[in-house]
Amino acid sequence: MTLLDQYHSARKHTEQLCSLLHPEDYVPQPVSFVSPPKWHLAHTTWFFEEFILKKYLAGYTVFNEDFCFLFNSYYNNVGKRVLRENRGSITRPATSTVMKYRNYVDMHMELLLQMKAEKTDFHDLTEMGINHEQQHQELLLTDIKYIFSCNPISPVYSDEVEWENQQNESSGFLTISEGVYGIGFEEDGFCFDNELAPHKVYLQPFEIENALVTNAQYLEFMEAGGYENFNYWLDEGWKWVNENKINSPLYWHKADGKWQHYTLAGIQDIHPNAIVTHVSFYEAAAYAEWKKMRLPTEFEWEVAAPSLDWGKRWEWTHSAYLPYPGFRKTEGAVGEYNGKFMINQMVLRGGSCATPPHHSRTTYRNFFHPEERWQFNGIRLAKL
Amino acid sequence: MTLLDQYHSARKHTEQLCSLLHPEDYVPQPVSFVSPPKWHLAHTTWFFEEFILKKYLAGYTVFNEDFCFLFNSYYNNVGKRVLRENRGSITRPATSTVMKYRNYVDMHMELLLQMKAEKTDFHDLTEMGINHEQQHQELLLTDIKYIFSCNPISPVYSDEVEWENQQNESSGFLTISEGVYGIGFEEDGFCFDNELAPHKVYLQPFEIENALVTNAQYLEFMEAGGYENFNYWLDEGWKWVNENKINSPLYWHKADGKWQHYTLAGIQDIHPNAIVTHVSFYEAAAYAEWKKMRLPTEFEWEVAAPSLDWGKRWEWTHSAYLPYPGFRKTEGAVGEYNGKFMINQMVLRGGSCATPPHHSRTTYRNFFHPEERWQFNGIRLAKL
Amino acid sequence: MTLLDQYHSARKHTEQLCSLLHPEDYVPQPVSFVSPPKWHLAHTTWFFEEFILKKYLAGYTVFNEDFCFLFNSYYNNVGKRVLRENRGSITRPATSTVMKYRNYVDMHMELLLQMKAEKTDFHDLTEMGINHEQQHQELLLTDIKYIFSCNPISPVYSDEVEWENQQNESSGFLTISEGVYGIGFEEDGFCFDNELAPHKVYLQPFEIENALVTNAQYLEFMEAGGYENFNYWLDEGWKWVNENKINSPLYWHKADGKWQHYTLAGIQDIHPNAIVTHVSFYEAAAYAEWKKMRLPTEFEWEVAAPSLDWGKRWEWTHSAYLPYPGFRKTEGAVGEYNGKFMINQMVLRGGSCATPPHHSRTTYRNFFHPEERWQFNGIRLAKL
Amino acid sequence: MTLLDQYHSARKHTEQLCSLLHPEDYVPQPVSFVSPPKWHLAHTTWFFEEFILKKYLAGYTVFNEDFCFLFNSYYNNVGKRVLRENRGSITRPATSTVMKYRNYVDMHMELLLQMKAEKTDFHDLTEMGINHEQQHQELLLTDIKYIFSCNPISPVYSDEVEWENQQNESSGFLTISEGVYGIGFEEDGFCFDNELAPHKVYLQPFEIENALVTNAQYLEFMEAGGYENFNYWLDEGWKWVNENKINSPLYWHKADGKWQHYTLAGIQDIHPNAIVTHVSFYEAAAYAEWKKMRLPTEFEWEVAAPSLDWGKRWEWTHSAYLPYPGFRKTEGAVGEYNGKFMINQMVLRGGSCATPPHHSRTTYRNFFHPEERWQFNGIRLAKL
Repeated sequence: MTLLDQYHSARKHTEQLCSLLHPEDYVPQPVSFVSPPKWHLAHTTWFFEEFILKKYLAGYTVFNEDFCFLFNSYYNNVGKRVLRENRGSITRPATSTVMKYRNYVDMHMELLLQMKAEKTDFHDLTEMGINHEQQHQELLLTDIKYIFSCNPISPVYSDEVEWENQQNESSGFLTISEGVYGIGFEEDGFCFDNELAPHKVYLQPFEIENALVTNAQYLEFMEAGGYENFNYWLDEGWKWVNENKINSPLYWHKADGKWQHYTLAGIQDIHPNAIVTHVSFYEAAAYAEWKKMRLPTEFEWEVAAPSLDWGKRWEWTHSAYLPYPGFRKTEGAVGEYNGKFMINQMVLRGGSCATPPHHSRTTYRNFFHPEERWQFNGIRLAKL
Repeated sequence: MTLLDQYHSARKHTEQLCSLLHPEDYVPQPVSFVSPPKWHLAHTTWFFEEFILKKYLAGYTVFNEDFCFLFNSYYNNVGKRVLRENRGSITRPATSTVMKYRNYVDMHMELLLQMKAEKTDFHDLTEMGINHEQQHQELLLTDIKYIFSCNPISPVYSDEVEWENQQNESSGFLTISEGVYGIGFEEDGFCFDNELAPHKVYLQPFEIENALVTNAQYLEFMEAGGYENFNYWLDEGWKWVNENKINSPLYWHKADGKWQHYTLAGIQDIHPNAIVTHVSFYEAAAYAEWKKMRLPTEFEWEVAAPSLDWGKRWEWTHSAYLPYPGFRKTEGAVGEYNGKFMINQMVLRGGSCATPPHHSRTTYRNFFHPEERWQFNGIRLAKL
Repeated sequence: MTLLDQYHSARKHTEQLCSLLHPEDYVPQPVSFVSPPKWHLAHTTWFFEEFILKKYLAGYTVFNEDFCFLFNSYYNNVGKRVLRENRGSITRPATSTVMKYRNYVDMHMELLLQMKAEKTDFHDLTEMGINHEQQHQELLLTDIKYIFSCNPISPVYSDEVEWENQQNESSGFLTISEGVYGIGFEEDGFCFDNELAPHKVYLQPFEIENALVTNAQYLEFMEAGGYENFNYWLDEGWKWVNENKINSPLYWHKADGKWQHYTLAGIQDIHPNAIVTHVSFYEAAAYAEWKKMRLPTEFEWEVAAPSLDWGKRWEWTHSAYLPYPGFRKTEGAVGEYNGKFMINQMVLRGGSCATPPHHSRTTYRNFFHPEERWQFNGIRLAKL
Repeated sequence: MTLLDQYHSARKHTEQLCSLLHPEDYVPQPVSFVSPPKWHLAHTTWFFEEFILKKYLAGYTVFNEDFCFLFNSYYNNVGKRVLRENRGSITRPATSTVMKYRNYVDMHMELLLQMKAEKTDFHDLTEMGINHEQQHQELLLTDIKYIFSCNPISPVYSDEVEWENQQNESSGFLTISEGVYGIGFEEDGFCFDNELAPHKVYLQPFEIENALVTNAQYLEFMEAGGYENFNYWLDEGWKWVNENKINSPLYWHKADGKWQHYTLAGIQDIHPNAIVTHVSFYEAAAYAEWKKMRLPTEFEWEVAAPSLDWGKRWEWTHSAYLPYPGFRKTEGAVGEYNGKFMINQMVLRGGSCATPPHHSRTTYRNFFHPEERWQFNGIRLAKL
C-alpha cells in the first residue's frame, strides 16, 4: 500500500466512524478529557495542514486562518489555542464546513504526495499524521461512548458493536526467566518517539497470565467487598473511591438487583465471560492486590507480548510513564507530542477493540492517569 | 385576540427566534446558568404538556415518557430531573424530534382550547404557560448571545439586531413627593404571583432620572478608575471584581486601544450614546456610588414608572427580591415558580430589548443574583 | 459612668472572657469566618490605636509597626492587611505580647481621656471603639465555641455557662395594627450608622409571637421530615441542606438515639423547653413555612419590640440587609464599618445570651448570610 | 549504643528541636501537608504506645483513650482518626499534657526494654519507631519553617541555623559504565520495607555531577526566562507554574530588585554559592531540560552514591516511586507505612541538612509529589 493509499484509508475510516452520528452529536463536551466529534474531525485535518501543507506545499493557502487557533490541541509552539475545556463551545464552523475542510486538505495532500511520491522529508510527518489520525479514531469512539452515556436516555450508537462481549482465547500462565532483555522499537517502519531509544533491562523471573480478567472474576472481587476494604487500595485510590463513590467499573449500574452497563449498542446485561473493561489503574491494582498477585511492568509485558493473546483491551501496567534512556524530545512543535506528558501517568500496553487494525505493536506505549477509565482498558495479572 | 390566538402567536415567535440557528447551535451549555436552545424549545412545550394536557385533556397520551425527566427545569413536585448543569449532554432527541414534540403538543392544546373556549379552570394555566414561554424567548436570545460569545470566531446571529445601539429618548429628573403609595398588581388580566398582594408603602421624597446611563457615561466611570477604587464597591462586589478580573461590562474588550463588544450582530465598536448594558448589580451600585447618587428601590421605580421611558433594559433596583406582605406560594408544582427563589437576588424592573412586546408591565418583578449580567440590564439613577 | 469608666469596663470584660483559655486556645482558625481569640484581643486594641491615638494623642508612638498590618480586619483605607483566612498563621506575637499591647494602648487612652475629659471630637470615636469591642466580645464567645467544637475531645470552656438552657418567659401573640410607623434611631447617645436615617414605613396589620421557638417545637419539625421535604425550603436553602448534609441545628448530634449538642459547658442533652439556637436563616424560614407562618420583617420587629421579651437569641427577620433611606457612608475608613456589607445578608434583631449587657437596643441591626449559624440565633414567628 | 540508648537519644532530640518554640507555635496547620509541632510530639509517642506497649507490655494502661484517635496519622487498620487537614483544631490537650504523655510512654518503653534487653520480637518495631521519630524530626523542622513563613512578620526560629548557606565540596562529573548492578538494602541492620527486595538492574552508561546546582546557577535559569518558556516544562508542571504564578523557589521574594528568602534564621539575602533548595520536581526537571541534561534515575543515583558528596539536600530523581520486584506489604497496620503511597510520587535520594545524622543511607528512598517543595530538596544533574 502506497503512503497515499494509507492516507486515504485512514481518512476515510474516520468519516465512516461518524456516519452514524446526528448533527447534534458532534458538539458536546461533557467533561474536559472528552472532545466533541467535530473537533476530532477538524483537529486531525489541522495536523496535516499545519505540519505538512504549510511547510512543504509551495503556494498552499490555508482553508481558514481561524482553524489554526480552534483546532490546535496542545502545541504551544504553534501559537495560542482554545482551552481544552472549551471545545464544546465551537458551535460554528458547522460540521458541513469541517467536512469541506477535510476535503480541501485531502485534495492538497493528494497533490503533494503525487508530486513527491519517492520517500522524502515530509513522508515521515505524513506517516505520523496517519498514526495520529488513528489515535483519534480510538478517542472518537470512546468519546462518543462517554458523551452518549451522559444523556439520560442512553442513545444507541450502533446495534452492531459487540466489543464489550469479547472473550479470552487462552488461559494459564506464561513463565519468563531472569535475564537481560532488549526493550523499545528496533525495526524498520514507523514508531512514536516514546518507544525510543532501544535499550536493555534486567528482569527478575516472573509469570504472566495468558487471559485477561473477566467480568465474572471482577464481580467476585466486588462481592468480596473489594470496594469497601482499604487494604487492597493505594492511598490515593482509596481517596478516589470514596470521594467519587465508586463501586463498579465505569458505565455499570444495578437495575433490579442485576448489573448492567451502557455500551455503544445501548444498555446491556453484564456478560460474565466477557473481559472486564473501563477500570482505572487504581481498580486494576486493587484487584491484583486482592488476588495476591500484581500487574506486570511494561518491560515484562513487552518481553512476554509475542507469546500473549493481546489486542482486546488496553492493559494497565505497574510502570509509570517516563522517558527511556537516551530519549530526547524532537525540536519544535512535534516534540510536544509525547515527552511533555511523562509525569503522573501510568503505562498501558497492547491495544483495544477500538484501536484501528495494525495501529499498535508490542513496543507501543499508551498512557493515562491512574483514575482515568473511559478507554477500553483491562487487567492482566503477573506474579513473583 | 382569543386565548388560542395568543397561544399560537407565542409558540410561533419562539420558533422564529430559532430560525437563524444551525443544528449545532442548539446543543451547547457553556455555563450552568445558560440553557441550550433545544432545551428551551422542549421545556416550554413540556410546561403545557405537564401542567395542562396531562390533567385537562381526557385520554391524552404523552409524546415521550423520557421528556418529563429531560425537560423539567426545577419543579421538585413533578419528580426527578436532569441536573441544570447537564442540559448540554442532551444530544438526542434531535432538534427535529423536539419540533415534532412542539407540533404534537400544539395540536392537542388547540383541540383542548377549541373544545373549552369559554373561560374555565385551565385557562389561567394556559395564560401562565404563554407568559412562561415569553420569558424563555428572552432567555433564548440572551443564552444564544452567551453561547455564541464563547466561540472564538464570534459568530453572527443576525445582522439586523441593533439593540445594543438603543438610545434614551428623554432626560432630566422626575420628582416624587413623600407619601403612602400602592404597590403590586391590581388590574384585570394576568400577573405572576410575586406581584401580589397589592399593598401600601411609605416613600420618602426622591428624584429619579428619566434617562438610563449611557456607554459614554459608564466609560467616564471606567476611566476615572472605577474598577480600581474599593470605595465605590460593596465588599462582595469588590471581591467579585478582583477574583474575576472584571474591568468592563460583559462582552466588552479592548482592541487597538478602542473598546468593542460582542453583539448578536457580531463584534462592534462601542457607541457612546447607546445605553450601557450587561452590567451586574455590583457595577450598577458602584457607578451610582461614584456619581454620589443611588439606585431606586423597586417601590420608587413602580411609583415613578408611568412617567418614565422604560423597556430598553432591565433596570437594577436597590431592593432585594423578597415576598410582598400577604404573599403565599400556590400549592403544588406551580407554587415553585417564583417563591422559592426569594433569597440572595436583587429585583430588576422594566423590560429589555429582548423582552417580547406586551410581556412586561410596571408591577413586573424580574430578579437576578448581584453578579449576573448576561441579561440586557442597565442603570437608572435616583437621589435623595 | 464616665467615658473612661466605660472604656475600662469594656476592656476588662474582654480579658475576663479570655481568662479561662489555655495558651494554645488563642491560635486556631478552623474556618475563615471564625477568628482566633488572640486576634480579637489585638484587633480591638488596634482600633483605638489606629483611629484615635495616632490622630488625637500628640507624640504618640505606635507599639509595633507590624500590628497595623496584622490586626486590621477589613479597612482598605488603612492599608494592606493579612487576608481574613490567614489569621490562624499569626503564631507570633505571643499572647503575652498582645496583652502588653493592650496595656500600652489602655495607658495612652487613659491619658488622652483624662487630658480631654469634656466631650470633644474623638469622644464619638471612643464610644464607637467601645461598642466595637463589645461586638467582638460576642464574637469571641461564639468563635471559641466553634473552635472548641472542632476538637474531637469537645473541651469545656466553663461549667457555668448555661445559655443554651434559657427559656421563654411569655407566650401568645401580639397584634399590631396597620399604619405608618417610625423606624431607626432617634434618641440621644450612640448608635451605628446603619440605624440611620430615621424614617417612616407603612406596615400592614400583623401578629407576632411573644415566645421564641423552642427545642421541642423544632424537634417536631425535624421529626415531621422538615429536612427532607423541599416544599418548606428556599431553593438555595435546599441546595445548602443537601450539599452539606444538614439535618439539625449546628452542634447537634445523635448519640444512642438521643439528640445532644456541644455547649460551652461541654456535651449536653437537648433540653426540650430551652429556646432553639444555632439555626440558619434557611432553617428559620423553612420552620416558619412548615408552621404556615412567616418570619417578621425587621420593621415589624422594631415596632413590636417594646412589647416583646427579647435578648436571649438573635432573631432572624425576613428583611435583607440594605441601606435605610438617606443612609450615607461616612468618609474614610470608618465608613467601611457597615455600609459595604449591605448585600446578600439578612437582618437579625434583638441580641443574644452572648451580647454584653446594654450593648443592643430595639433599633440595632445585626446581619449574617442566610447559611450562617454559629451565632446564638433563634426563630420568632409572625403571621398575616 | 544499646537500643534503649538509641531510643532515649532520638526522643530527646525531638524535644530539643522544640525547645525554641513558644506555646502558640505548637498549634497552627496552615496547609494540610504540614502538621502542627504538638501533633508531631504526640504522634511519634502514639506510635510506640500503639504498636509496642499495647501489645508487648503486659498490663499496660493507655495514657488517654482519646489520643489513639487524635494522633493516628494514616493507619486505617488502627481505627478512625482525625482528618489530616483538621490537625490544627487540636487546641487541647495542652502541650504540657503531651509532654506528660511522652514521659509516660518513655518510662514504660524503658521498663520494657530493660526487662527484655536481648533481641526479641518487638526490638524490630522499636527500631522502626526510632526511625519513624527521626523522620518526624525532619518534618518538624520543615513544618516549623513553613508555619513561620506564613506569619507576615517572619519570626526567627534560631539565629544559629545556617543550612541554607551550605556549599558544594566537590565538582566535575563521575562516569559510570554500562552493566548489571545490584539495587536495594542487603546489609545487616534496619531498613524500610520500600528498600527491599535487593535486585538487579541494567544501567546504560552515564555521567553524574559531583556538585548540586547552586543558587547562582539557578538564578541564571531564572534570568534566561526559565519560568516563562513552556519548552522546558512538563505539561503539568507548566500548568502548575501558571496556576500558582510560580517564578522562583519556595520562600524566595524580590525586595528592592534583590532576591531574598525566608530561612529558619529569618529573612536573608540569597547566597550565590549556596546550594539551591525548596524546588519542586517540576522545577528540577525544567532546569535540567534547560541545561540540556537530565536528572539521574534512582538506580543511577544509588550506584553512584558511594563516590558522591551527598547529605545536604534531598535530591530529586527522575524515577517514579514504585515497588521493587518482590516487594510485599507487611500484614496489618505496619504494612501501611510505605506501600500504599506508591503512586503519583517521585523518588528523592540522599538526605538533607534537616535529616538527623545517621538516619539516611544510599538505599534510602524518600518520595514526594512533583509539586511539593517545602522539604530541603535540591538538584543533581546527569547526562547521556
